[in-house]
Amino acid sequence: MKIMENRSVSCVKGFRAAAVASGLKKNGNLDMGVIVSDVPAAAAAVFTTNQVKAAPVQVDMEHIKNETTRAFVINSGNANACTGEQGFRDTKEEAARVAAKLGIAPEEVLVYSTGVIGVPMPMDTVRSGIDQCLESLASDGDEVHKAIMTTDTRPKCISVRINLSGKDVDICGIAKGSGMIHPNMATMLAYVVTDCSVTKEILTGIQRSVTDDTFNMVTVDGDTSTNDTATIIANGEAGNETIDSVDTEDYKTFYDAVYFVTEWLSKAIAADGEGASHFMEVYVHGAESKEDARTMARSVASSSLVKAAVRGADANWGRVLCAMGYSGAVFDQNTVDVAFKSDAGSIEVFLKGVPQAFDEDRALEILREERICIDIGMNTGSAEARSWGCDLTEEYVKINGDYRS
Amino acid sequence: MKIMENRSVSCVKGFRAAAVASGLKKNGNLDMGVIVSDVPAAAAAVFTTNQVKAAPVQVDMEHIKNETTRAFVINSGNANACTGEQGFRDTKEEAARVAAKLGIAPEEVLVYSTGVIGVPMPMDTVRSGIDQCLESLASDGDEVHKAIMTTDTRPKCISVRINLSGKDVDICGIAKGSGMIHPNMATMLAYVVTDCSVTKEILTGIQRSVTDDTFNMVTVDGDTSTNDTATIIANGEAGNETIDSVDTEDYKTFYDAVYFVTEWLSKAIAADGEGASHFMEVYVHGAESKEDARTMARSVASSSLVKAAVRGADANWGRVLCAMGYSGAVFDQNTVDVAFKSDAGSIEVFLKGVPQAFDEDRALEILREERICIDIGMNTGSAEARSWGCDLTEEYVKINGDYRS
Repeated sequence: MKIMENRSVSCVKGFRAAAVASGLKKNGNLDMGVIVSDVPAAAAAVFTTNQVKAAPVQVDMEHIKNETTRAFVINSGNANACTGEQGFRDTKEEAARVAAKLGIAPEEVLVYSTGVIGVPMPMDTVRSGIDQCLESLASDGDEVHKAIMTTDTRPKCISVRINLSGKDVDICGIAKGSGMIHPNMATMLAYVVTDCSVTKEILTGIQRSVTDDTFNMVTVDGDTSTNDTATIIANGEAGNETIDSVDTEDYKTFYDAVYFVTEWLSKAIAADGEGASHFMEVYVHGAESKEDARTMARSVASSSLVKAAVRGADANWGRVLCAMGYSGAVFDQNTVDVAFKSDAGSIEVFLKGVPQAFDEDRALEILREERICIDIGMNTGSAEARSWGCDLTEEYVKINGDYRS
Repeated sequence: MKIMENRSVSCVKGFRAAAVASGLKKNGNLDMGVIVSDVPAAAAAVFTTNQVKAAPVQVDMEHIKNETTRAFVINSGNANACTGEQGFRDTKEEAARVAAKLGIAPEEVLVYSTGVIGVPMPMDTVRSGIDQCLESLASDGDEVHKAIMTTDTRPKCISVRINLSGKDVDICGIAKGSGMIHPNMATMLAYVVTDCSVTKEILTGIQRSVTDDTFNMVTVDGDTSTNDTATIIANGEAGNETIDSVDTEDYKTFYDAVYFVTEWLSKAIAADGEGASHFMEVYVHGAESKEDARTMARSVASSSLVKAAVRGADANWGRVLCAMGYSGAVFDQNTVDVAFKSDAGSIEVFLKGVPQAFDEDRALEILREERICIDIGMNTGSAEARSWGCDLTEEYVKINGDYRS
């Protein structure tokens, strides 16, 4: 697997894309994007589990059942959530407009929105944005990864190339952060675009599995939005032998590459959490079950107290144990090890249930690094999980507490 | 029911108490307290559900099974959590010391600790603190409510008097906050002391029920500590006809008074959350089930985004809907009403699933009050619940992020 520099989604064979500033964002930034596959493609998506689902999520949950998918239309600046019947009609109109112009079926179009909640979509702006995107579709240098940004401080885009049965296969991923935005809640949107030839069934399985281990292990503030969606699309233009079974070497190579891309995006989202000054990985290993490991890792990464301690470079293992304790996982604290790690080194603070005397200055040195890892050994099994988050800062409160004026 | 001013737990008939500065707290503040019933009393307790339970919690879970209880010994400054076998031995020694001096059984003593985690109890200090407390027991004017404080900015103490079968019955409640403390996690400790005559079985039922509706509905930062405990003790010295059934008028009167005391303490804890500038009540009504109402109320009161919005006096109903949506409760957003209320008035922002145009200045006026209520009507049933919390402030991050030095 090779990491490819300076590539965007439209660099993947058989895809074109475009981004424009339609006017949905008042500051004139890019706010609409379209990604199109030149041929019918397989797609799979994982949607928010929030009971309050935005109109585009509800429409996409139907459209993804279609055997083929051809296009994504995405906007930032308005989430089209809690917008009632009108919201559905607007989403349907967006899909129909893209479909008509491309000569495809509306069910082949997926629609995504992120931004302010409870405000009807300004459809004149959206229509003109869609038309501008479709007129400027290109197969290189698109900026869709910028058009989906909200409070993100940097775009998130990663490309890799693998070789399957003698053919180059490209996989490009883009995402916007799950940090919650002023003036309303935001959304994690992620797209993986590939020219791999793979059946929809296999692709769906891969998407569910990698999402559980990557996107679902990111926590910025524990709030799950109304619009969160992760989508993968594969159009087969690489010409590799179609992956239609999980028992092949190609499947494994492709799975690992998709995993790499989604893990990379997940970490980038966590590191770019609102107001974050530290990136934090919580690594639970030696657990009895994968579910236990996941539950504990997420609980520690989500704890406001742990996040505030990381903010203060405080080796506060008590808060780590506490967050494991209320996670719901069952364990015996007497087998647990806890260490804090970073590029500056590693320090053990809790060993088989016993607090360790440690050099506070050394701990401070380790925790002052920008990227830190809380390493938790359960010593009772072989399951493991990682969760990613960021610290809780005064800046987070400021971003989310400012009045909407 | 009459609220009684300026009374502490030892003012309740047949109880004596004392508080001292033993030296566990380096700043010389009160840090140990003892409450003693002159006669064998009935007690009931609800303990933290955290898997990581401090030594005193584990010991008390055994001692509470004893038919009678006589004394509580409480310290702040050290939680005796994650302290291994030594922690158990120390807790047992505390109970034995109090018991020996009072001529009662060790199982009649409950031990409580709150403060720093992972540090062995300085037993010399504790022994001397216990002795000092026992030597200064008095039946008026004790300050145990101050000795249990950690980062609390004010003590929490409330007394009420009811009349049962012609006898005055006193109920006094004290508590310390669940806000999490520097340098480690803290604890909610609550005590209800009464001279009511009531069987242990009935008392246990009342304690579980009121705790579910009051202490368990307080959320400061969502972190459940290793030491949280709520205890009630009743010694029968009021001389009322013993309450031994739930079908009497006396039962109802007593239940309501205990409920009032625990609700009062719960609200006081929420209002005194670390760094809090607003007290917030989330009131969910018209729900299909009590469990749904509780789940949604807690989810909204716990949301970092809602808390940050309250901080900024922002009528951000989108975040409210969102937190209801990911709570786990199932509902249809199209029946939901949301209003923001305070002493300054009330404003409807969401009605039967439809966002309402509202006067932003008016909303700001309402939300700038210190105590605000988020009123959520589900319109699908008759169950209701209230949850109490506080806003998330820059100060919270500062308190919990400062290095422990």
